Amino acid sequence: MCAQATTLVNGQAVSSIDVHDRGLQYGDGVFETIAVHHGKPLLWERHMARLCLGADRLGINAPADALLRSEASALCAGASRGVLKIVVTRGSSGRGYAAHGVSNPTRVLSLSAWPDYPHEFARNGVSICICDTVLARNPALARIKHLNRLEQVLARAEWRTEYADGVMCDDQGNVVECTMSNIFLVSKGELRTPEIFACGVEGVMRAVVLDAAKQLNIRLQVGRITIDDLRNAEEIFLTNSLIGVWPVRQLQDNDYVIGPVTRKIQQGIRDAHCFDRL
Amino acid sequence: MCAQATTLVNGQAVSSIDVHDRGLQYGDGVFETIAVHHGKPLLWERHMARLCLGADRLGINAPADALLRSEASALCAGASRGVLKIVVTRGSSGRGYAAHGVSNPTRVLSLSAWPDYPHEFARNGVSICICDTVLARNPALARIKHLNRLEQVLARAEWRTEYADGVMCDDQGNVVECTMSNIFLVSKGELRTPEIFACGVEGVMRAVVLDAAKQLNIRLQVGRITIDDLRNAEEIFLTNSLIGVWPVRQLQDNDYVIGPVTRKIQQGIRDAHCFDRL
Repeated sequence: MCAQATTLVNGQAVSSIDVHDRGLQYGDGVFETIAVHHGKPLLWERHMARLCLGADRLGINAPADALLRSEASALCAGASRGVLKIVVTRGSSGRGYAAHGVSNPTRVLSLSAWPDYPHEFARNGVSICICDTVLARNPALARIKHLNRLEQVLARAEWRTEYADGVMCDDQGNVVECTMSNIFLVSKGELRTPEIFACGVEGVMRAVVLDAAKQLNIRLQVGRITIDDLRNAEEIFLTNSLIGVWPVRQLQDNDYVIGPVTRKIQQGIRDAHCFDRL
Repeated sequence: MCAQATTLVNGQAVSSIDVHDRGLQYGDGVFETIAVHHGKPLLWERHMARLCLGADRLGINAPADALLRSEASALCAGASRGVLKIVVTRGSSGRGYAAHGVSNPTRVLSLSAWPDYPHEFARNGVSICICDTVLARNPALARIKHLNRLEQVLARAEWRTEYADGVMCDDQGNVVECTMSNIFLVSKGELRTPEIFACGVEGVMRAVVLDAAKQLNIRLQVGRITIDDLRNAEEIFLTNSLIGVWPVRQLQDNDYVIGPVTRKIQQGIRDAHCFDRL
């Protein structure tokens, strides 16, 4: 990567943005975090679909797919492994929330090192906690990956290194997701995951897993999940675009086996997407 | 203002920040919007108190008051009127929500022109709407002026220029605030404003008005307010640090007089704080 840019702002090899950018001022934008393998951003179409969903919801003109694809390719060329983050904001404006006429979005692509998650996380499972910080319910901001992430920041501040992630509930006690991943459980052989309706992010890897479960004829339920459901589960696993599938072996005082459904899903997404993380 | 900086980032006369700043990445920071009059930021102590409350809540080391004061003075010198915005973020970090060890906050001070609100707004009142966009309830983020402002952006996008502001409720139907101001009503001679507990910003001018009401021996109730309470009110007014007090003359189909309590409050804050906006 010597002498090659690691950040592109609107196509330019710079690493700063205007202080009047609404991404900074209001978190007025969306982002994607994408695994890069042999110079190629993985699951590109799915990431772009969610980016566009989020931009549409916020009324931001998403940059053309071809433009982002070409900048991503330039940035990732030569990276055997890495993480590509794409931020799209509404752009710069004067003071005030009104955004009428603000039509020049800012795009920030940055490439960073592959995180040093231990290999045994995918193989032998992780330990997770339950966060006190709750997710506020607002369907207008649910499903999309917007830049208003203070709830995740506060939740992540509840532990240091002792857990791989933390479960977050909404203020009605529904399990929604973890700070950086979606969550699945297996109960009586059925795979279950929270519906993402009032809060939470509809993860790209979550969608991959749901598709894999259908292909593998695993019984599936997307709906309401409580902390008790997690405690009583046979298996639990976490998903995101970088980790793939991490089995959970411990949720506070409860221990879990890494069971057959989790292993089938891990195998399924590896076969379907060359997602070789084990 | 010729040849004088209008933006200071960590004391430097530049107008850009690092793309890895957590203010952009997560909205991980707080801000203040301060009226400037004859080179002086008004209500400085109150703004700093709220900035510190917000920074404390998020676990950000707020810059020292003396440092911000000296940079604000330098920036505002010579501005007969203007708006000083101070943004304090947690600073730059690597990827991921974890912020342990991130201890170098970013401060952005920017001076912009005084907004061209018509003078008659304060004298003759404004027309406001009721927003469909709701405020999600999360006490961890309530009261403080953090950088996660997508709800306000979405609410403000519901109208263009036909209203001066829009009322926002939480998802339980409680009136909380307007997109850029706090709201008060008068009912049977009593001044009432929503309690800021589960969502909303505890405005600096709201606090000034509450203090003024006590000094003026106006009966006061801070608690739950519904849209029906607004409809049935005798008087309504809005407050923020730039507008001071704007009487409301119309809320959708309901008309209001600009009554004696509103005028007393306007007079009271003018006397107490040289807040000469009429």
